[in-house]
Amino acid sequence: MNNVWIAGAGMTRFGRRDETLPDLIAEAGLAALLDAGIERPDALVVAAMNPEEFTGEGNYGSLINTHLGLAQVPTVRVETATSSGMAAVYAGFADIAAGLHRTVLVVGGEKMSHIPTPRVSEIIGRSIDPHERTYGTTMPALAGLVTRAAMQSRGLTLREMAQVAVKNHANGARNPLAHFREPVTIEAVMESRLVADPLRLFHCCPISDGAAAVVLTAEPAAVRIAGIGQGTDTMAVRYRSDLTSFRATQAAAQAAYKMAGFGPARVELAELHDAFSPFELISLEDTGLIPVGKAGRATLDGETALDGRLPVNTSGGLKARGHPLAATGIAQTVEICWQLRGMAEGRQVQARVGLAQSIGGLATNNWVALLEARA
Amino acid sequence: MNNVWIAGAGMTRFGRRDETLPDLIAEAGLAALLDAGIERPDALVVAAMNPEEFTGEGNYGSLINTHLGLAQVPTVRVETATSSGMAAVYAGFADIAAGLHRTVLVVGGEKMSHIPTPRVSEIIGRSIDPHERTYGTTMPALAGLVTRAAMQSRGLTLREMAQVAVKNHANGARNPLAHFREPVTIEAVMESRLVADPLRLFHCCPISDGAAAVVLTAEPAAVRIAGIGQGTDTMAVRYRSDLTSFRATQAAAQAAYKMAGFGPARVELAELHDAFSPFELISLEDTGLIPVGKAGRATLDGETALDGRLPVNTSGGLKARGHPLAATGIAQTVEICWQLRGMAEGRQVQARVGLAQSIGGLATNNWVALLEARA
Repeated sequence: MNNVWIAGAGMTRFGRRDETLPDLIAEAGLAALLDAGIERPDALVVAAMNPEEFTGEGNYGSLINTHLGLAQVPTVRVETATSSGMAAVYAGFADIAAGLHRTVLVVGGEKMSHIPTPRVSEIIGRSIDPHERTYGTTMPALAGLVTRAAMQSRGLTLREMAQVAVKNHANGARNPLAHFREPVTIEAVMESRLVADPLRLFHCCPISDGAAAVVLTAEPAAVRIAGIGQGTDTMAVRYRSDLTSFRATQAAAQAAYKMAGFGPARVELAELHDAFSPFELISLEDTGLIPVGKAGRATLDGETALDGRLPVNTSGGLKARGHPLAATGIAQTVEICWQLRGMAEGRQVQARVGLAQSIGGLATNNWVALLEARA
Repeated sequence: MNNVWIAGAGMTRFGRRDETLPDLIAEAGLAALLDAGIERPDALVVAAMNPEEFTGEGNYGSLINTHLGLAQVPTVRVETATSSGMAAVYAGFADIAAGLHRTVLVVGGEKMSHIPTPRVSEIIGRSIDPHERTYGTTMPALAGLVTRAAMQSRGLTLREMAQVAVKNHANGARNPLAHFREPVTIEAVMESRLVADPLRLFHCCPISDGAAAVVLTAEPAAVRIAGIGQGTDTMAVRYRSDLTSFRATQAAAQAAYKMAGFGPARVELAELHDAFSPFELISLEDTGLIPVGKAGRATLDGETALDGRLPVNTSGGLKARGHPLAATGIAQTVEICWQLRGMAEGRQVQARVGLAQSIGGLATNNWVALLEARA
């Protein structure tokens, strides 16, 4: 299996954007190609969760390669719900690891802010088991259920969850590409309006537009994908033995560590899927970065802050950088690349190994990637 | 790069089906696993072109792995419009070739017959360049344009095109899984109602439901994927230098032959993308199986018939076996496997090497695979 490197990274500003999705993807993709010094990649992988219903366009791989001026570059689209971006990184990784291509441009994005929120919520909600949906379940409702269970069984507190949002907003304020650039206080989070008990508005990521891209190469570059793993779990939440940790993250982390040949002890930086702020705490434990039951305390103690021993979501995370679905897994990869290359101006930390974790659906299809700076 | 083998194949009957798409995919997937003697694959690749709009369900990889009883098997969904099935074969191929997994179940299907035809046509039509769509263009309309051009510049005749349908219906009549099992006469084709001049109803494939599956393995099995290649072209037909041959097929064939280390001379059997019967003639020439300008004559002469020197679409092709979009590329692979293994009862031919060609959109994203019987 060939080594796979990340030779270029790019992303748009996330937020409410007036550009079309192809324009956003082109902005990110061309930035990544420029960064890599590559004009024409051997192949292209496109991630978009549901461009058909969000934008009315289909045949999305071809639409994007044509729009990028790369119509004759082999292109596939991949989708694993909200983790589609990392699935695209994996598809590009497999392609190069197998020796099928030498350079692959991986792009992903979503455009949703032009659509009424209830409709966006309905479309995203189709990631939920059809039977559970018949009860009117939405993603925030399920996340509220998970959070309530975690408060009872694991002693997670409202204050710990709120601190995740405070930290990530503080980081987002230092990231010029973040959707939200205003710091928030713990009181503001805890007093924001209720969305799905016990989750409040400021515990939840926004609906963002945006795109991100990386260029993968067989040729050594500044950052290597040391490991990448996927984990899955039953779509129906009611069939899971444990509501308060995600089997899909645990399996993905295990697979990524196995491929990398090292464990969580070497990870110095992480981008985690905080679509709902308690998910950052659950993810910290599912990836083995913090022992079970300790993530909340560690967060309150500042261990995961920008100046802590393990900075988490230096980009602002899904909470503050934003969450344009299929862009997210790639944006996490971009942030870690920039950190490892010393390019995260205003929020730079010292690290040689970073972990990115992406959740698809209600943790039905998750990914963990381990990135390592070149020795 | 590891060799990749096909250890199992399965498909449903194509046609108007009352079952749900997950049920159809499960029928095909479990048949392929049974054929391979494998209970639990290491990974799963799911192809569906647009399950969100055709069936109202999302997060399709997870929906399918849960439905198959394989919720904890890593799963991605891939999409390249009407060639999504072959894109899924490619994704599984890359996975095994890279050594990431040892066994991959590749499944694909579509369910459309429950939806009014104009709506199906509209959804499929989104594979067309957005600007060209503003003129009311549909897939049959573009195919008619291509056909008319081919009649003028290459001397393609109405009789040659009709003979493709006659041959494929004759083959479909021998395939118990085909959508159409009735032979048709050349007169019936040429007198059927006009769809998009010069294409008539019997030149066009039907709207079919169905699913197909193969099990890919690193362990040697009866059939090897000797080569697989992808070719793409600009979404806008108006930007192409040549309307009457498809650059995307030519590039895919070139890549597949290069990987296999042999050319068209060794191919003894082919499944080609005859969504419109003139496309079989164009594809025969684009893949190099028949010299340019000779495919029509060769078809009239019976060279591509079941008892000809190069049997084409022994399954009945898209025309008679049917075309449940994302099932099709996999179904082509299944047919060639069955032929190479001597399992195509009632339509068996003698062959050791077969070629499958799948067209995505109006030839924007095409694939060619070369399958070889184990020595």
